[in-house]
Amino acid sequence: MQWESIFHVSETPYAFPVGDHELKVRIRAKKGEIKGCSVLFCDRYVPPGNEQTLELTYAGSDRLFDYFETVILSETKRVRYLFRLKGNDGNDVWYGENGPFYHQDEATFFQYAYISGSDQFTVPEWVHDAIVYQIFPERFYNGNQNNDPQHTLPWNEKPESDSFFGGDLEGILEKLPYLSALGINVIYLTPIFHSPTNHKYDTTDYYSIDPHFGDLDTCKKLVDKAHQLGIRVIFDAVFNHCGDQFFAFEDVKKKGADSKYKDWFFIRDFPVVQSPEANYETFAINVPNMPKLNTGNPEVKDYLLKVVRFWMEETGIDGWRLDVSNEVDHQFWRDFRKLVKGIKGDALIVGEIWHHSGPWLRGDQFDGVMNYLFREAVLDFFGGHKINVSMFNHRLTQSRMNYPDQANVCMFNLLDSHDTERFLTSCEKSGESIDDKRRALDRMKLAVAFQMTYLGMPMIYYGDEVGMTGETDPDCRRTMIWEEENQNLDLLHFYKRLIHIRKQSRALKKGEFGSWIEEDRRNIFGFHRTCGDETIGVLLNNSPNIHQISVPIDWKPSEKTVIDLFTEQEYSIFEQTELTLPPYGFMILK
Amino acid sequence: MQWESIFHVSETPYAFPVGDHELKVRIRAKKGEIKGCSVLFCDRYVPPGNEQTLELTYAGSDRLFDYFETVILSETKRVRYLFRLKGNDGNDVWYGENGPFYHQDEATFFQYAYISGSDQFTVPEWVHDAIVYQIFPERFYNGNQNNDPQHTLPWNEKPESDSFFGGDLEGILEKLPYLSALGINVIYLTPIFHSPTNHKYDTTDYYSIDPHFGDLDTCKKLVDKAHQLGIRVIFDAVFNHCGDQFFAFEDVKKKGADSKYKDWFFIRDFPVVQSPEANYETFAINVPNMPKLNTGNPEVKDYLLKVVRFWMEETGIDGWRLDVSNEVDHQFWRDFRKLVKGIKGDALIVGEIWHHSGPWLRGDQFDGVMNYLFREAVLDFFGGHKINVSMFNHRLTQSRMNYPDQANVCMFNLLDSHDTERFLTSCEKSGESIDDKRRALDRMKLAVAFQMTYLGMPMIYYGDEVGMTGETDPDCRRTMIWEEENQNLDLLHFYKRLIHIRKQSRALKKGEFGSWIEEDRRNIFGFHRTCGDETIGVLLNNSPNIHQISVPIDWKPSEKTVIDLFTEQEYSIFEQTELTLPPYGFMILK
Repeated sequence: MQWESIFHVSETPYAFPVGDHELKVRIRAKKGEIKGCSVLFCDRYVPPGNEQTLELTYAGSDRLFDYFETVILSETKRVRYLFRLKGNDGNDVWYGENGPFYHQDEATFFQYAYISGSDQFTVPEWVHDAIVYQIFPERFYNGNQNNDPQHTLPWNEKPESDSFFGGDLEGILEKLPYLSALGINVIYLTPIFHSPTNHKYDTTDYYSIDPHFGDLDTCKKLVDKAHQLGIRVIFDAVFNHCGDQFFAFEDVKKKGADSKYKDWFFIRDFPVVQSPEANYETFAINVPNMPKLNTGNPEVKDYLLKVVRFWMEETGIDGWRLDVSNEVDHQFWRDFRKLVKGIKGDALIVGEIWHHSGPWLRGDQFDGVMNYLFREAVLDFFGGHKINVSMFNHRLTQSRMNYPDQANVCMFNLLDSHDTERFLTSCEKSGESIDDKRRALDRMKLAVAFQMTYLGMPMIYYGDEVGMTGETDPDCRRTMIWEEENQNLDLLHFYKRLIHIRKQSRALKKGEFGSWIEEDRRNIFGFHRTCGDETIGVLLNNSPNIHQISVPIDWKPSEKTVIDLFTEQEYSIFEQTELTLPPYGFMILK
Repeated sequence: MQWESIFHVSETPYAFPVGDHELKVRIRAKKGEIKGCSVLFCDRYVPPGNEQTLELTYAGSDRLFDYFETVILSETKRVRYLFRLKGNDGNDVWYGENGPFYHQDEATFFQYAYISGSDQFTVPEWVHDAIVYQIFPERFYNGNQNNDPQHTLPWNEKPESDSFFGGDLEGILEKLPYLSALGINVIYLTPIFHSPTNHKYDTTDYYSIDPHFGDLDTCKKLVDKAHQLGIRVIFDAVFNHCGDQFFAFEDVKKKGADSKYKDWFFIRDFPVVQSPEANYETFAINVPNMPKLNTGNPEVKDYLLKVVRFWMEETGIDGWRLDVSNEVDHQFWRDFRKLVKGIKGDALIVGEIWHHSGPWLRGDQFDGVMNYLFREAVLDFFGGHKINVSMFNHRLTQSRMNYPDQANVCMFNLLDSHDTERFLTSCEKSGESIDDKRRALDRMKLAVAFQMTYLGMPMIYYGDEVGMTGETDPDCRRTMIWEEENQNLDLLHFYKRLIHIRKQSRALKKGEFGSWIEEDRRNIFGFHRTCGDETIGVLLNNSPNIHQISVPIDWKPSEKTVIDLFTEQEYSIFEQTELTLPPYGFMILK
């Protein structure tokens, strides 16, 4: 057994509470080396020799490691524990705080000293039901032509980075029935506060709705109406930077070192210079219209947290998506979380982080992140056929194992966003063969089927559901297609159907994930979702060929048939049930 | 190369800021497999191909791993980075966020998105100079017989767990010149607030000094006088639990479920029952006089934080040692830190944690912990000869590598405490041979020499310096020996000399640690401490035999002699300098 591969540490994501008396523990070891793992545990004050033993469950594998998990129940909330790994080589290893040993008495117990209620990572219960829809308001629908910007272009024209099309909050309000019919129940709006650009990531005034989008009343009306339809609303918190017309930055531009706002930013020297190069920190590299805010300055924090309170109290929104959240300090986000959850206990907080997000997902900051690692895996597997089934499964597993359970269900699982190429376009561009390219839409559907049956919140980028295409920004921000003759109604129907199926199933909404079939040669992937006594088996054929597959439907021991929820076709259950998966076909078996 | 052994994650203790533009990164790999490691890095927004390269330095080894470190300088504070490990097998491996790969283009960069000033782990500068002295006030000195408890026993009698001897704050005040002459500059006092026991870990009143110890005025006088002598004072924060005579608990005992303090505790049912078994959570297992406080309750937190403010403002103390700190919630400690550092920027916060303390040592909670892992290693190596030089070095390395640099210098490096057997007693009891046991004092001296030359704050438990012995609690809490004829004056002189040597040397106080000699057969351990242009080489002979040792003194290239700071003897430097280490002898070579 490779001792150096074994890893556990008594902190998130390897040990984290999942209840007042429940500690989830996770351990990893070199792939294929362990045939089982158990954990000895006890109250940490109880003398040695009184431990209970619990078997861990195999939780999945990534490229290099197998993972095992279990939940330790502790009446006293004070846990010491020690793992015993049973090697395939016949050797057992004891693994504790001072590492692996052959003999139990050499190993030291891990300590999870106390399961504190106030440290628990609690997330909104509604995330299990959520289907999220991302709207870029300038391009969704023009509901009021009186507030259009100057030089508004005709709807459907190809956007440039500085184009305006007149989309607004009244537009969204008007289209709520469409969204409701689609089946989504959360809207995430990219920024809507006053700003000179179409994307509005350069805020001029955090306290007002952009006049081209509407006003406070329209906003309240939108949130109210959405709520009436059972749709929650998430705003975009752009706190890493402001716009260069933000009052505090204007003051610094004017008064230089004498401005009382000079420490709201990171200004290298005075006076402030904006071109050819900003002499202050900005978003990304030299973006002068987005000066970075010093959120470590208590005045700035106080200002921004008041903004948060204002919008939550005025409009009753249900959460925040946090722009460039990894470049804002952790202290800020901790106070932000306390405030947000204090105002609305079940508000959602989702950060924008494109890479590993562990430090933000321990329960003291975000609930989840925009799951770009999910997108990359889905894109590489369904979109580009760049990775095989095992690699796809490994990447999903690695991502899940990097976070606590609470965070895994609070992910915005996206195929694309306003910051990426449209998924359908990626499918069209990539693919190994001409046939692959022709089947772009099928591959996208398969990806959507996966998105709607996987763990985490499916997030739809506006228009994907009607077949919108587009290269990366600004092309991915085209105006929404509203003419039915230009919409892909088959795809729209497909989305509605899958959303409906997900919403009907506890297992799909909040079930545990388990791998089932991993066929690299034929490109077939299967997995289970299980919640209580409901299990769903999902089969995906990520290939242009029809495939027969013979699988055990062993989770329905007392029944004789299984039904594919998508086609509603019934299949008789045998020890091995023969199923036929069409090219890029899938089954959602219940 | 064992790919599964390689480990890095972009968070503390593997990546942490050590300055506004400085990110320290650390990586581990299987021992002996890597001949070098470099890191490619860049601003995270700069396109690929523009990276700089930096070599990492070997930082030490534990039982299974070699560690490498470096500090990345980032002008923009936004870092992406990727490691390249050069294997002894001739293969190179690229290691990034998605793991190890043979080819650079398969690996994904790690992201340290932004080095935030407000997230920086800053610790008091004075910790580098600190020599800490732990006092158990009831047993240190009786300065005022008028405040003695009933049934006060004669000084020097053997203590039982409920004995009283009359030690008090005036006693400490009177003995400050003794402490000053010893050379210590920090006093850590176990609890002094009103409580019925001799140890006072069951607080009755957080706002008053125990009447047998003195009053607020005595306390202020003590702190003032200590400060005049350049001695800082640390109090014990006992916030995990209170005493059962604490007003809030008294109220709950009286009023049961009607008490407005019922949620200050974890009471299973009403009325409160204390025997035979408490029906509420207590410290440890069924300790009815120590009901656990619900620090997650905002009222409790508010109450305790006001206590903290009161004592800091009233007396000007310099920090807190936190009792049973691992069973109090992280949220509490985060707010505690903000308050404490807000009142006194350079106050010290040291938690009591006997096991791995990573989750508390990321910069948002404690500065350091009582370093019981240090004690265990020192006890096993010098005290019991249970482990060899390599194992000793491995355990020290593992402990350092588990924490960021800032925490490593804020450790209370103790040989013993009020909760353990006295170190000299351990030395007397253990040891392999009769000779070993006879040489207990020599072994203790060698351990002290190590303690005084290692990184972190040496902490002396009162009386150790005059040769006090004692089994575990209550015997380790004997009254301080003040009669010179009963003190081991040779040991006292030894302590003073080593403290003096440490205080004179920047390298010993704040130098980096590097392993130098690891001779398991002869039990010789050597290490360097380096700060700027000063290097000290320490050699320890942990054996009862005289040993010749031939070592390179290669850190003084332009000089011809080296001096042993302890004996003040000079040695000529040759390519290999011949030195003679007496049994249990040591050298501190400059």
